[in-house]
Amino acid sequence: MRFLSSMRSDRCIADADVLVDIAHVLMLERQKIISTDTAKQLLPALLELNSEGVPEEVFDDRFEDVHAGIETLLIGAVGADVGGRMHMGRSRNDEVATCIRFKLREDLLKQLAALLKVREVLVTLAEQHRESVMPGFTHMQHAQPTTLAHHLLAYEQQFTRDFDRLRDAYARVNLCPLGAAAFASTGYPIDREYTAKLLAFDGPVVNTMDAVATRDFALETLADLSILMANVSRLCEEMVIWSTSFVKFVVLDDAFCSTSSIMPQKKNPDTAEIMRAKTGSVFGAYTGALMTVKGLPMSYNRDLQELTPNIWRGMRDAKESLRLLIDMLSSATFDTERMKEEAGKGFSTATELADTLVRDYGLPFRMAHNIVGRAVQKGSLSLEMLEAAAKELDVGISFTAKGLTQDQIDKALDVTHSVEVRRATGGPAPFATKIAIADRKKLLDTDSVFIDERLAKIAKAKEDLISDARRLVA
Amino acid sequence: MRFLSSMRSDRCIADADVLVDIAHVLMLERQKIISTDTAKQLLPALLELNSEGVPEEVFDDRFEDVHAGIETLLIGAVGADVGGRMHMGRSRNDEVATCIRFKLREDLLKQLAALLKVREVLVTLAEQHRESVMPGFTHMQHAQPTTLAHHLLAYEQQFTRDFDRLRDAYARVNLCPLGAAAFASTGYPIDREYTAKLLAFDGPVVNTMDAVATRDFALETLADLSILMANVSRLCEEMVIWSTSFVKFVVLDDAFCSTSSIMPQKKNPDTAEIMRAKTGSVFGAYTGALMTVKGLPMSYNRDLQELTPNIWRGMRDAKESLRLLIDMLSSATFDTERMKEEAGKGFSTATELADTLVRDYGLPFRMAHNIVGRAVQKGSLSLEMLEAAAKELDVGISFTAKGLTQDQIDKALDVTHSVEVRRATGGPAPFATKIAIADRKKLLDTDSVFIDERLAKIAKAKEDLISDARRLVA
Amino acid sequence: MRFLSSMRSDRCIADADVLVDIAHVLMLERQKIISTDTAKQLLPALLELNSEGVPEEVFDDRFEDVHAGIETLLIGAVGADVGGRMHMGRSRNDEVATCIRFKLREDLLKQLAALLKVREVLVTLAEQHRESVMPGFTHMQHAQPTTLAHHLLAYEQQFTRDFDRLRDAYARVNLCPLGAAAFASTGYPIDREYTAKLLAFDGPVVNTMDAVATRDFALETLADLSILMANVSRLCEEMVIWSTSFVKFVVLDDAFCSTSSIMPQKKNPDTAEIMRAKTGSVFGAYTGALMTVKGLPMSYNRDLQELTPNIWRGMRDAKESLRLLIDMLSSATFDTERMKEEAGKGFSTATELADTLVRDYGLPFRMAHNIVGRAVQKGSLSLEMLEAAAKELDVGISFTAKGLTQDQIDKALDVTHSVEVRRATGGPAPFATKIAIADRKKLLDTDSVFIDERLAKIAKAKEDLISDARRLVA
Amino acid sequence: MRFLSSMRSDRCIADADVLVDIAHVLMLERQKIISTDTAKQLLPALLELNSEGVPEEVFDDRFEDVHAGIETLLIGAVGADVGGRMHMGRSRNDEVATCIRFKLREDLLKQLAALLKVREVLVTLAEQHRESVMPGFTHMQHAQPTTLAHHLLAYEQQFTRDFDRLRDAYARVNLCPLGAAAFASTGYPIDREYTAKLLAFDGPVVNTMDAVATRDFALETLADLSILMANVSRLCEEMVIWSTSFVKFVVLDDAFCSTSSIMPQKKNPDTAEIMRAKTGSVFGAYTGALMTVKGLPMSYNRDLQELTPNIWRGMRDAKESLRLLIDMLSSATFDTERMKEEAGKGFSTATELADTLVRDYGLPFRMAHNIVGRAVQKGSLSLEMLEAAAKELDVGISFTAKGLTQDQIDKALDVTHSVEVRRATGGPAPFATKIAIADRKKLLDTDSVFIDERLAKIAKAKEDLISDARRLVA
Repeated sequence: MRFLSSMRSDRCIADADVLVDIAHVLMLERQKIISTDTAKQLLPALLELNSEGVPEEVFDDRFEDVHAGIETLLIGAVGADVGGRMHMGRSRNDEVATCIRFKLREDLLKQLAALLKVREVLVTLAEQHRESVMPGFTHMQHAQPTTLAHHLLAYEQQFTRDFDRLRDAYARVNLCPLGAAAFASTGYPIDREYTAKLLAFDGPVVNTMDAVATRDFALETLADLSILMANVSRLCEEMVIWSTSFVKFVVLDDAFCSTSSIMPQKKNPDTAEIMRAKTGSVFGAYTGALMTVKGLPMSYNRDLQELTPNIWRGMRDAKESLRLLIDMLSSATFDTERMKEEAGKGFSTATELADTLVRDYGLPFRMAHNIVGRAVQKGSLSLEMLEAAAKELDVGISFTAKGLTQDQIDKALDVTHSVEVRRATGGPAPFATKIAIADRKKLLDTDSVFIDERLAKIAKAKEDLISDARRLVA
Repeated sequence: MRFLSSMRSDRCIADADVLVDIAHVLMLERQKIISTDTAKQLLPALLELNSEGVPEEVFDDRFEDVHAGIETLLIGAVGADVGGRMHMGRSRNDEVATCIRFKLREDLLKQLAALLKVREVLVTLAEQHRESVMPGFTHMQHAQPTTLAHHLLAYEQQFTRDFDRLRDAYARVNLCPLGAAAFASTGYPIDREYTAKLLAFDGPVVNTMDAVATRDFALETLADLSILMANVSRLCEEMVIWSTSFVKFVVLDDAFCSTSSIMPQKKNPDTAEIMRAKTGSVFGAYTGALMTVKGLPMSYNRDLQELTPNIWRGMRDAKESLRLLIDMLSSATFDTERMKEEAGKGFSTATELADTLVRDYGLPFRMAHNIVGRAVQKGSLSLEMLEAAAKELDVGISFTAKGLTQDQIDKALDVTHSVEVRRATGGPAPFATKIAIADRKKLLDTDSVFIDERLAKIAKAKEDLISDARRLVA
Repeated sequence: MRFLSSMRSDRCIADADVLVDIAHVLMLERQKIISTDTAKQLLPALLELNSEGVPEEVFDDRFEDVHAGIETLLIGAVGADVGGRMHMGRSRNDEVATCIRFKLREDLLKQLAALLKVREVLVTLAEQHRESVMPGFTHMQHAQPTTLAHHLLAYEQQFTRDFDRLRDAYARVNLCPLGAAAFASTGYPIDREYTAKLLAFDGPVVNTMDAVATRDFALETLADLSILMANVSRLCEEMVIWSTSFVKFVVLDDAFCSTSSIMPQKKNPDTAEIMRAKTGSVFGAYTGALMTVKGLPMSYNRDLQELTPNIWRGMRDAKESLRLLIDMLSSATFDTERMKEEAGKGFSTATELADTLVRDYGLPFRMAHNIVGRAVQKGSLSLEMLEAAAKELDVGISFTAKGLTQDQIDKALDVTHSVEVRRATGGPAPFATKIAIADRKKLLDTDSVFIDERLAKIAKAKEDLISDARRLVA
Repeated sequence: MRFLSSMRSDRCIADADVLVDIAHVLMLERQKIISTDTAKQLLPALLELNSEGVPEEVFDDRFEDVHAGIETLLIGAVGADVGGRMHMGRSRNDEVATCIRFKLREDLLKQLAALLKVREVLVTLAEQHRESVMPGFTHMQHAQPTTLAHHLLAYEQQFTRDFDRLRDAYARVNLCPLGAAAFASTGYPIDREYTAKLLAFDGPVVNTMDAVATRDFALETLADLSILMANVSRLCEEMVIWSTSFVKFVVLDDAFCSTSSIMPQKKNPDTAEIMRAKTGSVFGAYTGALMTVKGLPMSYNRDLQELTPNIWRGMRDAKESLRLLIDMLSSATFDTERMKEEAGKGFSTATELADTLVRDYGLPFRMAHNIVGRAVQKGSLSLEMLEAAAKELDVGISFTAKGLTQDQIDKALDVTHSVEVRRATGGPAPFATKIAIADRKKLLDTDSVFIDERLAKIAKAKEDLISDARRLVA
C-alpha cells in the first residue's frame, strides 16, 4: 500500500489541490451540475483548508493519495452526499496533472527569478572588471589575454539561454488538464475554459486523452534543468580550479568552504564541488523520468506517478544550486593582480604581434606567423630574434630596415593593448564589453517584467478565486 | 592521429564549410583586411568546391579536420601566400561551431517538416474516424469508450509540442559564432553582423568566448529529440499491441513488417519495434553529449569534438523514424469493427449510466455510483438488477416508480451515446473532434508557413552569397 | 550549511558508524596509539550508542555530518582530551567510505535474499506448470507453443544472473578503507588488517588514495540494479499485458491492483506498473552517480557526498520492487485454460508439421516449409490442402501416396505434441523443464548457503566486536 | 528496408557467423539431422568463406541481415535443397545472439589485455617513482605530501577492479544460445552442448527462451565499460590539469598533443581531452542499450537489433581509449622537481608535526592540533611560534622545557620524512609501495594467465573446428 501511495511526493501539491477543488466547485455550480446549495456546503471546508493549511491527517498512509485524503476529510465535514459531489465531472487523472502543473509553474517562476539574479550578479561583476585583464584558456592552456568581464559575460549568456528555455517551457506547462476526467472527459456540461481561467492557466490542455497521458511538460523542464546544471558545473569547475594554490584567481568566502577534520591548513571549495555534483543528480532525475514514459501506451498508466518525485527532486536541487551560486559569486574576491600577472605568460600575445606585422608592415599572413612562431621557439620576441628568425626562414625581409622598433614590438605584445584592439562584437575589449553590458541590462529588465507579470497574474487569480468562493458562500 | 581526427563526422559539414569560407572571404575583402585581389584569387576555388562538391582527398586522414583539408587544397591551388590569408580573423574553434549550426538548422527544418507531415497524417486519419468508436484504456485495461479520432488527436497534440520545442530551439541554433576566433575574437576590424547575415543567421552569438565554448544549442536539440522519440515509442508500442492476435485493431502494411525465418505464418511489426528502440539510441546520444560538457572549464576544449557525432546520430535516427512513421501510419488499416466490438465490453459505459441516474433522476452522486457498481459486480445492468442493487443497499428508491425503463438504461449504456455526450473541449464526441480538427488544421497551416519562410530565407541567402562572390570575381 | 550537510543521507549509516568507531578504538589501543585508559573511557559511550541507538540530537543540522555529531556527543560525555583521541589515525574521508561499504554490504545481502526468493517463487510456479501449454511470442505475435514452466524459467535464469552480478559486486564492496585517513594514511602505527577483520570485511582496500577516492563499488552496484530492474520491467510488462481483457492469462490478487475513482468496473495492475516505472528511478540513480565521478581528479572531492543518496535510493527502490514482485507472483492466478486455448491459434505449430514432413517423409527442408506455408496462406492444414499446395508448387509429391494421414497431420499440429518433442537442453518440453528445475533447485541451495555464510560471519563479527569492547572496559 | 536491415552492424559478426554455421552443420550431421552427404556439400563453401573472408556481396542492402546474405550465397553455390538445410534446427534469433557473444568475448579479451597493459605501465612508472614526493590533493587543494608511486598505484587499483568486472562479465558472455531456435528450441534431436563446445563456449545458455530474449550480458559489459571510462576520465582530467602552465607536473609527448591554428605557442593535451569525452560516448551507448530493453515482453523483439550497434560502439571507443592511454602514459615525462617543490607548500605537513607532538611529547591529540593550527594561521611553524601559540591557548606547556628543538620540528615538517612514516598498508611510504608493487606484479601475472588461457582455448577450438570440417569433407 505504501508502495502504491504517492503521499511522499503529494505534500508538494496539497495546497494546489485545495485551490483546484475550489475552482472545480465554482465551475460545477456555475454550470448547474451541482446546486448552489451543494456548493455552499462544500466551499467553507475548502476555504478553511486554504486559509489554515492542509492538516497532517490528510497525508495518512491509508489514503492512496492527497486527493483521497482531502475528499475523506470533506465527507467527514459535510456528509457523503454533498462531499461526494465534488468529484463530479473529473477524475484523479486530470486532477493530479492539474496540481502538478499548478505547482510546477510557480517553481518555474522562482527558478527564473533565481536565474535572473545569477545573471545580474554576473553583469554587475563584469561591469566592475571591464579593465581586469586575465589569461584566456583553451584546453586549459594559457591562450590569449582576455578580460574578466568577457569571461563572466560568457557565462551570463549561457544562463540567459537557460532562462529562455525555461521561459519557453513555461508556456507548455501553464495549461490546464482539468475536466479531462479519466481521459474521455465527461458527459456533464463542464466548462474547461472557465476553470482554466480561474486557476490562471493560459488555457486548457485541449485533447483530454493527451491531458492525462502526457508528462512531456515535465520532461522538458527537467531537460532544461539538466542543461542549466551542466552550465553551472562548468562555472563551478572553474571556481574550484581558480581557488587552487596553483591558480589563486579567486578567494571564495569562508561560508562556502570547509576545513579538513585533520588538516588545519585546508580551505576547501565544497559548495562549488557539490553544485558541480548536482548536475548528475538533476540529470539522473531527467533520465529516470524519460525512461519511465518510454513505451507507455495511452492513456493514463500508474507509471506516471513514479515520474513525479523526479520533477520535485530535480527542481529542488537546481533551485538550491542557483541560490548558492548567487551568494558564492557575490561574495567571491577576484585577485586581478594574479590574473594580470598570468595574462602575459607563455607568449600569449604572439598572435597579436604576427597580426601587427601583417597589418602594419604588409607581410603575408603565413610568413608573419612563421617568423613569430620561430622566435617563440627560440624563447624571445625581441627585434633581434625576429630578424634572426626572418633570416633563418630566408624570407628576405629586414624589420629594422622597414622601421620596426622594439617599442612597437612591445606595444604589440602588451596584454592591455592586445585586449583593447579586440573590439569586435562580443569581444573582450572594454569598448566591446561596455556595449554588451548595456545590452544585457536591457534584457534583464525585460526578463524581470516577464516574471513579475506572471507572478502578478497568478496572485490576482488566487485572490479572485477566494473572493468568488467567499461571495458564493456568503 | 585517427583518434584525434574529426573526419568521420566532418563529412556532415563539408558543404557548409565551403559556404562559410566564401562568406568569410567576402567580409575580409569588404573590411579591407585582405585586398580585393586576394579575394579574387581565393573565391574561384571555393566557388568550384561549392558547385562541384568537396573532393574525396579533402577527407584524407592526414588532415586533422575538414577545415585543414580545404585550406590545404586551396593553398595547393593559389599558393600559400594567398591561400593562407583565408584563415585571417578567425580560428577553427569558431569555424567548426559555425558549420555545425549551419548544418543543424537545415536538419532541424527537415525534422520540423517531417513532424508536420506526421501531424497531417494523424489529422487526416482523425477526420476519417470521427465516428469510429473504440475502447479507451487506462492501465491497459478497458476503460470508457472513445473515438479513434480522439485517440489520434492526442498523439497529434504531443507531436505539436515536439514541433514547438524544436521551433523554439531553432532560434537558439540559428546564430553565428564566426569571428569569435579562438575565443577572444581578433584585432582585425571584422564585421560579425555582416557574415551572420550573408549566411542567413539571425545574428551573431554575441559573446565570443561563449560562441566557441557552448554546445547547449545541440544539447537542447538532442533533449527535444529524446522527448519526441519517447512520444514516438508510445505510439509504436500501441501499434505493436494493436497488431497482436489478441487485439487486431490495426493491420500494418506488409512493407513495415517482416516474416520469420522458420515460422511462415508470422507477420511481425518490426518497423514499429525498431522505432520504439530508437528512443534509446537518441536518448543515448543526448546522454553522451551532456556528460561530455559536464565540468568543462572555459573556453574551447577538445572534448567538444567528441560531442558532435552525437548530434548527427541523434538527428539521423529521429529523422528516419519520423519518415517511417509517416508511411506506416498512412498505409495502416484500422479495423473499426473490432474496435466497436471491444468498445462496449467490460461495462465500459457504467459511469455513463450512473451519471444519467444523477442527472435525470436526481440521485446523489455517490449513491448512483454505488448502485451501478453493485449491479456490475452482479454481472448485469438490467432494470431488475438495478432495483435489486438499490434494495440491497437500502437506499429507498424504486427506479420503476421513478419511470426508468430498460430502453433508457440501454440508451445510457450505448457506446455511441456515451461518446456523443462527451462534448467538452477536447473530448471524444464527434462534435468536439470536429472543432479540434478545424483548429489543428489552422495550426498546421501556420506551422507550414514557419518552415517555408525559413527555408526560403536560407535558399535566398545562399543564392545571394554565390552571386556576390561571382560578382567580385568577375 | 544545510546544502553542505550530508545529514539527510547519513541516517542510513549512523549505526554502522558506531561500530566502526568501536573497532577503531580497539585497534588504537592494541597498537598503543591510545592508552588502555583512554580506550576504557571512550568505549562505554560508544557501547551505549550501539545498544540504545543513535539519539536524534546527533542528526542536528549544525553538524556537518553524523561523524561530527557522534564525536561531539562523545566529547560532551568524556571530555575533549579523551573524546578527541578517537579520531587519531583516520579522517572523515576513510570513515565515511567505510560506513557506506558496511551498510551497503548488508543491503546487498538482503537484496540477494530477495532475489533468491523471487527465483524460488518462479521455480515453484514452474514446477506446477510443467504441463501448462501456452503460446510463446516473438514480436508480441503468437509464435510457437511453449509451456508456462519454460516461460517462467526464462525469467528465473535472468534473475540468477542478476544474483550472480550482485554476488560478484559483493566481493568488491566488502573491503575496508579505514586507516586511509585523508588519503595518505597516517604516521601512527595503525593495523589496517585488524580493523578490517573486526568489522568482518574481507580485507582492506589496499591503496589508501584509492580507498577514499573511489566509489566504483557503488557504481557497480547501481549498474547491476539497473539491469535487474530492466528484467523486472519486462516481467511486469507481461503481467500488465496478461491481465488485460484481451489476454486474460493471469489474474493478479486484489492487493496488487487498484480501482478507478470514477469507473467501478476497473481493476488496474498498479503495482506491476509502478515496478516497471522504478526501472527509470533506479537507472536515474545510476546515471546521477556515474556523472558525478566523471572527470574528478584524485583524491577525495566533496562531489562524492552527493553521490551517496543515489546509492540508498536505488537500493530502496529495487528492494521494495523485489518484495512486491515476490508477493505479486505468489498470489497470482494463471488461467491455464485460456493459455491452452490461445496456444494453438494462428497456425502456431505449422513449423512442427513442416519438420515432420522432413523427418518422416524425407522431404527437402525448404520444400516442406514452402508447402506448409502455402497451405497456411490458404487457411487450413488439412491433407487435401497440403496435396493442393504441393500440386500448385509442382513438387511432384503425393502425400496420400506416401501414406500420410490426417491423423498424423493432426498429431503433428497438436500443441501438446509440439511441446513434447522440444526436449533439447533448456527447451519447453516437460522432459526438459524437469531437468532444468532440478538443476535450478540445486543452484538455489548453493546460493542460499552463500548468503547465510556471509550473514553469519557479519553477525559473529559484530558480536565479537561488542564482547571485545566490553571485555576491555570491564 | 535499410531501416530494418542490421547490415551496418553485421559486418562485425560476419566472420563469427561462418564459424557458427560450420559448427552447426557438423552437429546436424553428427545427430543425423542432415545426411553426411549434405554436410559434405555444405562445408566446402563455408570453409572457403572462412579462409577467403566474407565477400562484399553478402552485405548487400537487399538482405535483411548477414545470415540471409550468407545463406543466399550458399544456396547459389550448392542449390536450394542442400543450402536450405543449413538453417534446420535453429533460427536467426539464436544465431545472431550466438554471433554477438562469439565476437564480444574476443573483444572482451582484447579489452582485458589492454587493461593489463595499462596496469603494467602504471606499475612500472610507480616503481620508478617510489621516492618521488609530490603534493597529494583533496578538493584540488594541496593536502599532505605523498609519492607519485602512491598516486599511480591508486589508479592501478581502479583499473584492476575494472579488469575484474570485465573478467566476471566474461563468464556470463561466453555461453552459447545456439539451438534455442526462435525461442522454443526445436523438435529435431539437436545437441546443444556439442555446438557450444565446438565454438569454445563454456556451455549453452540453458533456457532457450532466455537465450534469445536476453541481452543482459551486453548491458553488463557496457555498464562495466562505463565505469572503466569514468576512471579513465579521472586520470585524463589529471593529465590535463598537470600539463597546464600552472602545474607543470607532466609533459605529454607531442604525439598526444596538438597546436593551435592561430596560436603557435600552444601545446594542447587533445588526446587526454578526447579520452575524457569518450566517457560520455560509452555511457551514452549503455544508456541507449538499457532503455531499449526496458519493458520488452518475452521473447525476441526486433528492438534488440537496435541495441547491438551500441555494443560495438561502446567497445570500440573504450578500446581506442585504452590503447592511447597506454602510449600517452608510457611516453609522458613527469617533472619530479616541480612535484617536490610543490609538495611542501601550504603547510602540507602540519598534521605530521601535530602527530609528532602527540607521539613524542605526550600532548593530548586535540591540544596538539590546536596549537599547530594556531601557528599555521600566524604563518610559521617555528619553535617560537609554537611556544607563542601554546601560551595564547593557555595550555600550560613549554616546548623548550620539554626539550623540543627546531631541528626536531624541521624533521617533522620535512616532506620526505612525512612520507616515510606513512608505512601503513597501502600508504605512500617507499616501504609500503615496495610491498604493494610486488603484490601487484604477482596479480598481473595471474591475470595475464587468465587471458592467455582463454585466447588459447578459443584458438584451439577454431583450429579443431576447421580440421573437423575438413576431415568430414575429405
